[in-house]
Formats: sequence, structure tokens, C-alpha cells
Amino acid sequence: MRLALWQTQGHPGDIAANLADLAVQARAAAAAGAELLLCSELWLGGYNLRAQPAEAADGPSAQRISELAQEHGIAICYGYAESHESGGKPYNAAQVISANGQRLSNYRKTHLFGAFERTLFTPGDRLQAPFKCGDWSIGLLICFDVELPENVRKLTLQGAELLLIPTALTPEYRAVPDLIVPARAVENQLFVAYCNHSGVEAGLAFLGGSCVAAPDGSKLASAANGEALLIVDLDHGQRAALESTFPYLAGRRPEIYT
Amino acid sequence: MRLALWQTQGHPGDIAANLADLAVQARAAAAAGAELLLCSELWLGGYNLRAQPAEAADGPSAQRISELAQEHGIAICYGYAESHESGGKPYNAAQVISANGQRLSNYRKTHLFGAFERTLFTPGDRLQAPFKCGDWSIGLLICFDVELPENVRKLTLQGAELLLIPTALTPEYRAVPDLIVPARAVENQLFVAYCNHSGVEAGLAFLGGSCVAAPDGSKLASAANGEALLIVDLDHGQRAALESTFPYLAGRRPEIYT
Repeated sequence: MRLALWQTQGHPGDIAANLADLAVQARAAAAAGAELLLCSELWLGGYNLRAQPAEAADGPSAQRISELAQEHGIAICYGYAESHESGGKPYNAAQVISANGQRLSNYRKTHLFGAFERTLFTPGDRLQAPFKCGDWSIGLLICFDVELPENVRKLTLQGAELLLIPTALTPEYRAVPDLIVPARAVENQLFVAYCNHSGVEAGLAFLGGSCVAAPDGSKLASAANGEALLIVDLDHGQRAALESTFPYLAGRRPEIYT
Repeated sequence: MRLALWQTQGHPGDIAANLADLAVQARAAAAAGAELLLCSELWLGGYNLRAQPAEAADGPSAQRISELAQEHGIAICYGYAESHESGGKPYNAAQVISANGQRLSNYRKTHLFGAFERTLFTPGDRLQAPFKCGDWSIGLLICFDVELPENVRKLTLQGAELLLIPTALTPEYRAVPDLIVPARAVENQLFVAYCNHSGVEAGLAFLGGSCVAAPDGSKLASAANGEALLIVDLDHGQRAALESTFPYLAGRRPEIYT
């Protein structure tokens, strides 16, 4: 699979401007042969906002993104604030729309980070089982979720071969892309695409550092802190090739831990 | 706590020579103020041996190590082949003897790695709860055990603040000390001391790369591939200082994973 990851500062609070940028990036990623484009956490409306512009999972922005996906023939994964069914605080969600314009997955962040997120959002109550995109089985988590090994292990045991992680990470957490993201890739023998914000948003600085980690722990690509579009090829055969080197799933003994 | 980690090629099959070297290293580590000295996996007899020289946990080598610990006033953690109670294959074990000469813990590796170890050893059937050494709560795992996040999480939830990991790691596994060991330290907010063999043993090359990782993901010390004695100070207050930055234990939602 050819995967595109788009790191941007974006336009906080200006959904129309973000959608206009997405049209440009989706066109470029598709022209480069990418099958899937990954955006950051709460990319649609912005992260550091006291009033999140929430929409339903099939709201007007989702419809526009579905049009873009079909126009360019590329699946799109993006973070957004999903309105609550019964008027509660919105969810911090991520949605994947296929190149045919259909929803492949919608996940509500289960592990909200810090007082800011817990004030603004309702936590999700479950992980989403991996979805299929082409012949890949893909799991979806958001930011802090990936820092807890239990979440990634659960999706791995459900068959995930690739994780998409929209995130919003600040500079004191360099250990996450440097250590935790590639460690997750090795210990679960899967690919991890980790897409952050860059720049500064309403006084909040982000780390950038978006990356794609492979099952051998290498980074297929990584960004510094600026606008970036990373396009990488994921080798579906790498897991099988490494199976005898890193026999983690065969080596588990659940009776020891539980 | 001042911790010493001794990386050595050792003398495979020659327990007397290894014990003689240990006397030198224990003296040096104690002279540097270390309270605890960590040796590698199967350090006592050697790793790459078809016939492991097994002893009981209170056998002659343990008695000699107890004498050395008392003579120098330093706790000693070392890997050895522990004879089976009823004549089966030995265990791949690690034992900790206090500066008073008493056993603090004895752990039998639960996750044997590869056909070589599974041919030679009986796997242990449980983790050992953390033991106290001074005012530190310390967990004990061996090599491949630490690569599975479940093992470390279990010891963390039992209160471990420091993990001792005797290991025997070959060069293709550089991702373990580079990524997995420091990721374990961050995601569990504890210290991890990882002590490998160096050099070549009966045709089997080891990586070296022994290290001590801190809860912020930094390495307090690390070795290349040669004889080394690393002596580092572990700051008992670092976990509390990082608690709000890395709230992993408070942030867990076990109902999501299980």
C-alpha cells in the first residue's frame, strides 16, 4: 500500500479553509499514487478550541470529504469533533472514508488526555475492530490511546496490520514518536502511521514529528515541525518475513498475565 | 539508589572463573557506592551451551555469591540455570541475593525464546511479585519477557519501580535496547536496567548494548559491545515528578481492553 500522511498547522476554527487545503493535498497524494491519506487529530476544526465545531459523522464536512475521496480516488482518514447523539459533549473522533466515498470506520477516542480534553469531550466506550481497506486490515486509535500498549495489543489480536493514529502532540512528548510509536510497531509486528499537528495554534505549540514506523522498528519517513506530506510504501510481506525473528504473538502466554 | 550493571563476555562453562570475576566486580561496584549489581542472563555458566551446568537456588554458587554479597555489602542479581525439582530440564532463572546474603527473589523465565531455549529449559509458570531492596520495589524479568508489554505492565501494577532484566541478546535485535526497553520505562513510569552479554560465545555473537532507561525515556547509561561496568544513580522522586506529564497508570481503562 502507498500511504500518504499530511502534517499541517491548519486553520483552527475555519472548517472551510481546512477542507479547501484537503482538496489540494488529496489531489497531490492521489497523483503520487497514494491509496490512503491520513490527517491529524481534530484536524477538521482545530485542536486548541474551547468551543469545538461538532458535526455528525455524516454531516456536511463528511459529505464534502466523501466527494473529495471519490473525485481523487483516495481513502481519507481525519480527526473531527463528532456531535453527541443526545446533546452531550461531543466526541473526539476519527473517521475513514473510502475511495468510493463510503465510511469504513468511525472511532471515538476512548482515552482522553488531560483536563482540557475531559472538559470538552465525551469519551468513547469501545475500540473499533479493524476495518478492511484493499487487502489491508487497519486499526484506528487517537493520540494518547497509542501510548497504552493494551489498546494496540487488542487491535493486533483482532488482526490489524496497520494502525492509523491522528494525534495532537506537544513538544514535551518527544518520547512518543521517538520510542513508543516504533516500539508498538515492533512488539505487535505491524505498521504505525502517526500524524501530528505542526506549528502553533492559539498559543499551543505542537511537536510535529509525524512518522510511519515499520515492524522492524525503522521509520519509513518522519517529519520535522512544518508543513509536510509524507508518501511511503508499506510492504505487506514484511510481517511474514520477520515472523521468526520477532515471534511476539506466537510467544504470548496470556495465562501468565491475567 | 546507586545501581551497577556488569556487561561481560564471561567464561562459558567455567563457573569458577565467572565467580572469580564477580568477586572483582562486586568489590569495584561496592567501592563506587553501588547498592545492587546486575549480571546477565545465564551469566553463571554461560548462555550458548548445549549442556547447562544447573544448580539449585541454594546450591554452591549461590552460597559463594551470598558470601561475596556480604563481604562487599552489595546486593547481587544474576542469571543461572536452576536445576529442576524432579529431574526435568532446568529453568532459565535469575536470583537476587541481598547485601545480607539472603535471597530476595528467584524467578524462572516464563517466555523462553526460540527452539534453542525451549529444547534446553523448562519454562517458569508465573511471574514473581516485586521484592523490596532498601526502599525500592523491584521486578525481575529475563530477556524476551520484557519484549512483551503485558509482563512489564503486570509488575508495574504490582508496584514495581525498577526492573532488572538479565538478557542474552544477539545483534539483529538492536530494536530491543534502542526502542523497547526505553518505551517500557516511559509507558510504565519506572526504571529498566537491561544487562546483556558482550563478545562471542562458542560462535554466537552478542549485541552488548546494556543500558539503564529512566521514566522519561532517556538512558542513564549504555554500553557498546565490550566489557563494561555501568554505575548510575536512580532518582526515586522522578516518577512522582513526571506523574502529571505521563499519567499512564491513572489513564488506563481496563474495561476497554478486557
